[in-house]
Amino acid sequence: MAASDFKTIKNILRKKYRVENGKHFSLADYDPADIGGLSLDKKQGKKLLEKRIQTLNNLQELLYANGKCGLMVVLQGLDTAGKDGTIKHVTSGLNPQGIHVASFRQPGPVELEHDYLWRIHVAVPARGHIGIFNRSHYEEVLVTKVHSSILNNQKLPQWALNDVDFWQHRYEDIVNFEKYIHHQGIAIVKFFLNISKEEQRIRLLARLDNKEKQWKFSPNDPKERQFWEQYQAAYQTAIAQTSFPHAPWIIVPANNKWYAHLVVIECLINALENLNLTVPKPKPEITDSIEQLKAELGEDTSK
Amino acid sequence: MAASDFKTIKNILRKKYRVENGKHFSLADYDPADIGGLSLDKKQGKKLLEKRIQTLNNLQELLYANGKCGLMVVLQGLDTAGKDGTIKHVTSGLNPQGIHVASFRQPGPVELEHDYLWRIHVAVPARGHIGIFNRSHYEEVLVTKVHSSILNNQKLPQWALNDVDFWQHRYEDIVNFEKYIHHQGIAIVKFFLNISKEEQRIRLLARLDNKEKQWKFSPNDPKERQFWEQYQAAYQTAIAQTSFPHAPWIIVPANNKWYAHLVVIECLINALENLNLTVPKPKPEITDSIEQLKAELGEDTSK
Repeated sequence: MAASDFKTIKNILRKKYRVENGKHFSLADYDPADIGGLSLDKKQGKKLLEKRIQTLNNLQELLYANGKCGLMVVLQGLDTAGKDGTIKHVTSGLNPQGIHVASFRQPGPVELEHDYLWRIHVAVPARGHIGIFNRSHYEEVLVTKVHSSILNNQKLPQWALNDVDFWQHRYEDIVNFEKYIHHQGIAIVKFFLNISKEEQRIRLLARLDNKEKQWKFSPNDPKERQFWEQYQAAYQTAIAQTSFPHAPWIIVPANNKWYAHLVVIECLINALENLNLTVPKPKPEITDSIEQLKAELGEDTSK
Repeated sequence: MAASDFKTIKNILRKKYRVENGKHFSLADYDPADIGGLSLDKKQGKKLLEKRIQTLNNLQELLYANGKCGLMVVLQGLDTAGKDGTIKHVTSGLNPQGIHVASFRQPGPVELEHDYLWRIHVAVPARGHIGIFNRSHYEEVLVTKVHSSILNNQKLPQWALNDVDFWQHRYEDIVNFEKYIHHQGIAIVKFFLNISKEEQRIRLLARLDNKEKQWKFSPNDPKERQFWEQYQAAYQTAIAQTSFPHAPWIIVPANNKWYAHLVVIECLINALENLNLTVPKPKPEITDSIEQLKAELGEDTSK
């Protein structure tokens, strides 16, 4: 691939799906089947992904060595959108010491005793680390908004539930939480894996037809599908309310998995490059006495 | 004590030291030696405290039974202000199952890997619980502001440290954090145990003179005393920036310990009473079949 081609591709993958300001955001503008007008095919895409994993790997090592910044990655999407697969394909090959995946399924009894950001905050990555959230605090303005009966499990006092600004407070609280995380030197990037309704039907059918994948199918999946429009509306509002330059949403066209993986990895590389990380300087007591330290280590007597 | 006297006393203890709006707050207006103009003496004060512990106890049981709201109590004060003693005197007698005291000393290496609210959020009380913070997130705008070299340990990236709004962000982030906690049905009350510089000197000397208390004395204590004015200024700003009706500061006159304890317990009672808790209603399947359930339990055959 010519260098100029690569530059064009990188540019599209990094910028085309990025929402930094929710004001004029419309989910309908984003085609789940888009492949960026690129002449890449699936095979070439996979090859490029392999190459970029190496770059991500190097950046992760730098992040870890610096130990000051961190990267919080939010991954959202409807059933079958490809969250698990994206995590597997994009982060395999990274050093697990510097990466942590937190899956936020339906909260259990201990979690429900606490405020909803409690389990999220615990998982916010430490300095030098990448934390990947497979689902996240956004479920609180997505599934919880579509099925508001879920709120009954959250044991909130009546005055809080009756508040006319209840949902507005949730958006604001999430925005403020992420603003704080950003102030702490933790970069944030949020992905919405955007598939079409027809693509979801195809994937669910494929799960039923494949004995190896049947375990992934839930009898609830077809029922949740009936709430498709409500979920789209909930994502529309959530993304519009919470997109900022320091915490952008990436609307990943996810009908083609290989393309979705390319968008995600390129945006992760971009987020880490924006941190302007450099190899940490050795302490002066090291640089001043390299020869002496070498002498202390002695000669290799095992020869 | 006549009922009308008690009402007057309650009123003073609950309202006189309460800051709900920081706009015109001035720490200089609060006399650490104040005892509210009351005719109470130490002995009567202690007797009243005993009585009020019973009321606090009943309210805590109600809080626990309801399991919806919680109470987050922040306790701040300079060395010897009486934080440990206040916790001991005010909360002894409460059911430890519903109360948790978290002491936030200098953060250790694991804590320093994380954002500063990480360890705080973990300790935010669960529904039905009272969480008492012996020191708190406020240390981040108090000791850290007085000795800004502490920031070097926090491993923040340079761009964050260089931000001209660095401290303003900290105040805002704390305000937003507490706003969120409030939205979650967790009430907040914050106490500053306010002693005079002379009272601190007397207490430090007493520690040196008492073999049983010498362990509490740190060689650092006289050094920190030299920063008295800087601490007062840091408290002034912190309280002015973070006082709201949903998260008030109480400027507790703490030169007289018995009086400080009375103010604290009365404000805790007030905070719990404001939650308007009632005994939870039994489930209809219980009320509808009390006689049947009694029959199922059978007769007492041990007679």
